[in-house]
Amino acid sequence: MTAQSFADRLSHARALTEACLDGLLGPEPLAGECERPETLLSAMRHGVLNGGKRFRPFLVLESTRLFAGPEDAALRVAAALECIHCYSLVHDDLPAMDDDDLRRGRPTVHKAYDEASAILAGDSLLTLAFDIIADDATELDAKARLMLISALSRAAGIGGMAGGQALDLQAEKIAPNEAGIVTLQAMKTGALIRFAAEAGAIISGASDDNRARLSQFGTVVGLAFQLADDLLDLTADAATMGKATGKDVGRGKGTLVSLHGPQWAEARLGQLVAEAEALLSPFGDKAEILVEAALFVATREN
Amino acid sequence: MTAQSFADRLSHARALTEACLDGLLGPEPLAGECERPETLLSAMRHGVLNGGKRFRPFLVLESTRLFAGPEDAALRVAAALECIHCYSLVHDDLPAMDDDDLRRGRPTVHKAYDEASAILAGDSLLTLAFDIIADDATELDAKARLMLISALSRAAGIGGMAGGQALDLQAEKIAPNEAGIVTLQAMKTGALIRFAAEAGAIISGASDDNRARLSQFGTVVGLAFQLADDLLDLTADAATMGKATGKDVGRGKGTLVSLHGPQWAEARLGQLVAEAEALLSPFGDKAEILVEAALFVATREN
Repeated sequence: MTAQSFADRLSHARALTEACLDGLLGPEPLAGECERPETLLSAMRHGVLNGGKRFRPFLVLESTRLFAGPEDAALRVAAALECIHCYSLVHDDLPAMDDDDLRRGRPTVHKAYDEASAILAGDSLLTLAFDIIADDATELDAKARLMLISALSRAAGIGGMAGGQALDLQAEKIAPNEAGIVTLQAMKTGALIRFAAEAGAIISGASDDNRARLSQFGTVVGLAFQLADDLLDLTADAATMGKATGKDVGRGKGTLVSLHGPQWAEARLGQLVAEAEALLSPFGDKAEILVEAALFVATREN
Repeated sequence: MTAQSFADRLSHARALTEACLDGLLGPEPLAGECERPETLLSAMRHGVLNGGKRFRPFLVLESTRLFAGPEDAALRVAAALECIHCYSLVHDDLPAMDDDDLRRGRPTVHKAYDEASAILAGDSLLTLAFDIIADDATELDAKARLMLISALSRAAGIGGMAGGQALDLQAEKIAPNEAGIVTLQAMKTGALIRFAAEAGAIISGASDDNRARLSQFGTVVGLAFQLADDLLDLTADAATMGKATGKDVGRGKGTLVSLHGPQWAEARLGQLVAEAEALLSPFGDKAEILVEAALFVATREN
């Protein structure tokens, strides 16, 4: 697998995901819905169709392909996951949370609309995510859909992403120790990435062992993702990132990079990529693109 | 059915629901969760275990009993629905939305904690709701659980409650006409009450006809609920309601009561109760408590 073909596949996943999201966020109400208010729908679209890399959807699609699972179902699960990722960005950007005006170089939802619309757009995206998976259009047996809903809600809720964001806000007041930072990051960033990798195994009806293996792979990729993010916050400029940088330091927020330094972080990233590769070695060449994904995450520049 | 025994049943449903919610909002993480941060959990509990009437859970339990469906499963669905109702109150009370300091005579979540915690507590309650239904502990066949998740997400999302709240905020700027008010209310308040009535039919595996009949019953009860609410906003005082009243008028917000007057509203409430009774007449005496529920909603004083 060359770097070129990895980039092609990422870009292919991105195009598929965006077309799927565009369709799911159409103006026509579904059965059981009254109507879809125009401004709210537009705010949701602003929050989702925003030029993201679609890394999580890519992981869902590729982890499904590893087990030769159904691509159409994987795409809907990928879109649902992206709705949750994007809702979290919309809410995290609010003045009461991280108070960001820019996201990927564009005004955040509460800047482009207003705070109430941003809160409701986030709520509606989160709600929609579960409908997308539950719907019969996600052609998986009913038990698999329930397993996905359960795993996704736990990755996203108090015991996952939302809980991690709560810990992150607390960390601005009382600096956590290293174990606290690890937990916070595993929840805030790690949980959804872990779910993305695990989802392919669930979608494909893989064995429990393989599901656990993919889940571990996702955990390692999540660690690498966050470490690279903390490095970038220290070194990149706002123009490259399309959002404010240097904020961790500005807020006195501890990260593993601030504790151990950038050299340690670079070395640790190398270890994590090796761990990811080792976890997927039983799958041989079929897993090459997922190993590339771990490398991509560890070495990304924005 | 005497008024006394109706009150007993409502109070019984309330006790069951609160015990169930208390258990679901415990400190122990579920499989797939990391940990449950204490402050966030406490904010969620503040938003949910708040002395509500639990009318929606009552409807779920009683509509299930109408078809002799499984009570344990109904209780979990009732608790999930209450999580969604309560999340919506937590978010609606935020400064960027209705900006309320009091809810049932107690400080709202963002007053007792802070805005960020209130946003995250709402998000986490919404997320938890879907996990509660998806979990195998909700002992229903997988397809029924998916139908419930789908129906609930559509009742709660952009095409239902959240969309209705968006229309309600717009209505403060541009007064809607009568049709607009009806749509707004059907979405903001009606959708969850309709779901509550319909849920019993899904939980019990009732026929499509009976599901549609219960859904219509829920729609009528929702209309009565909102109309009674608008009347109370005009006539009750804040002490009785445990929250600010007279707000609709203060904000120039049109309601059917402000359009047609309180006498019309009283007459319309009588019609709605009769419609509810007619819809349930095929079920005979078994539906008596649900008819009482419609009357209760239409004549409540807080």
